[in-house]
Amino acid sequence: MAIIAVGSVAYDSLKTPFGERERVLGGSATHFSMGASLFTKVNLVGVVGKDFREEDIELLRNRGVNLEGLVQKEGKTFFWKGEYRENLNEAITHDTQLNVFAEFDPVIPESYMDSNILFLGNIHPELQLKVINQVENKVKFIAADTMNLWINTTPEQLKEVIKRVNLIFVNDGEARLLTGEKIVVKAAKKILDMGPDFVCIKRGEYGASLFSKNDTALLPAFPVEKVIDPTGAGDTFAAGFLGYVDKYGNFSFDTFREGLKVGTVLSSFQIEDFSVDRMRTLTLTEVENRLNLFRKFIR
Amino acid sequence: MAIIAVGSVAYDSLKTPFGERERVLGGSATHFSMGASLFTKVNLVGVVGKDFREEDIELLRNRGVNLEGLVQKEGKTFFWKGEYRENLNEAITHDTQLNVFAEFDPVIPESYMDSNILFLGNIHPELQLKVINQVENKVKFIAADTMNLWINTTPEQLKEVIKRVNLIFVNDGEARLLTGEKIVVKAAKKILDMGPDFVCIKRGEYGASLFSKNDTALLPAFPVEKVIDPTGAGDTFAAGFLGYVDKYGNFSFDTFREGLKVGTVLSSFQIEDFSVDRMRTLTLTEVENRLNLFRKFIR
Repeated sequence: MAIIAVGSVAYDSLKTPFGERERVLGGSATHFSMGASLFTKVNLVGVVGKDFREEDIELLRNRGVNLEGLVQKEGKTFFWKGEYRENLNEAITHDTQLNVFAEFDPVIPESYMDSNILFLGNIHPELQLKVINQVENKVKFIAADTMNLWINTTPEQLKEVIKRVNLIFVNDGEARLLTGEKIVVKAAKKILDMGPDFVCIKRGEYGASLFSKNDTALLPAFPVEKVIDPTGAGDTFAAGFLGYVDKYGNFSFDTFREGLKVGTVLSSFQIEDFSVDRMRTLTLTEVENRLNLFRKFIR
Repeated sequence: MAIIAVGSVAYDSLKTPFGERERVLGGSATHFSMGASLFTKVNLVGVVGKDFREEDIELLRNRGVNLEGLVQKEGKTFFWKGEYRENLNEAITHDTQLNVFAEFDPVIPESYMDSNILFLGNIHPELQLKVINQVENKVKFIAADTMNLWINTTPEQLKEVIKRVNLIFVNDGEARLLTGEKIVVKAAKKILDMGPDFVCIKRGEYGASLFSKNDTALLPAFPVEKVIDPTGAGDTFAAGFLGYVDKYGNFSFDTFREGLKVGTVLSSFQIEDFSVDRMRTLTLTEVENRLNLFRKFIR
């Protein structure tokens, strides 16, 4: 089993109420790969510049992440400068430099085509569609993440993505924006009407829900005591969710229900430190222990 | 078994995105009594004016609510005019006329003293303390609700209340305000250090959590599809929670865990219509059915 992860690989300069970091490893494909590689094989697709550090390549390689689809181009790596203030659910962007990412043209290597799942990180819907065109009918399950920007600027392409994926990840604000429906469960149903089999609504520190035509799963968030940097929490949530699903190899709602719990717990670790730092040392035993505690809290 | 409910009995003029109502029945003791009377005997303590309608007396009496502690005084009933806009979790107050409530001096009738539980609705902490002084060592369990206003204006009296009750209800904003702690689970622990056995944190459409020194219960909200008027949701949540606990007659954490679910489901009905209108017709069978659905969603 394996998951193809397509998205940004970036350097982030971050400021949170708990500290600052300059040019640390980030990006949706990076965060997803660091999380999912705890559970399964990850085949990464992305682009970096000549400034991309060898130690960051090594980090991913040591996690068993397949980097055949990571292209290194002339120029600089995608750079994001962001800040979180009081509301840790909301990032304030100070600077975005697309750099080599501006010409990102994702090509899925032939050797990736026996993967089970495709995860499309939050990138331009046109790029997501390009990837879908390459792997449709080859992978068994396609999941995509998105954001407000694409709902506002490229709604038609985004709707085409939503129609063609099995699962779409949105947060509750995005679900409302996408459908014009204030009540989240109604918004979820309207998104299901757009074509996907599942809608996963992420609510940050308030938990997550999963909707299909016939089933609903609701989960509170893990009651974290330490929050240092929320960057990558959504990608890590998706990584735990899909990593678990891929490891257990079936797409039943009950497996997804467990996957939601794994994603919730994995992202509760992610936010405990800057960048990918918590994921560097996190063990499956730590995940299992917190998962058992979480199961006790919600039983 | 029985619960003493002390709080406001009021007339509300309400505006929500879904309509308006003039001078409809409201108040914390009213909402609590309407909800809890589905499960157990309620002994109400409150004050109303000469304008209080006979039909509203009848409504409560027909639910089996004991009105021996409801005093009728010269003057007008407590009046609140409020509005909810986009954010249904936040009420905007346009007018508050305390009227006879300004001189509310809660006296617990002797016949109420064999009650199991005392619920103190959101009123001035001085009044809550007056009631605690009368029933301490007589009832088995004391629960209190509060609000931002008292945290800001009478923090010392409120802390005395919190010290002397078994359970305090707060929302997450209030928990943060009360403790200066941003992370909710840390705020809950700080509140436990103030003296109560349990802290119940209500998060509106995001669910509820219960904390004791040794246990934690987390619950997402019921995914409501119909929201007309959020007024009274918190009191109805407390009513379902305490009503269930009183009906089952024990104060174990596992009973409380179930009580949280009942409170969540009961308040999901409350917000489906203005004032107490949904509670007028709600049956225990409807509650049971939704509770079963909720259990399926969160299993």
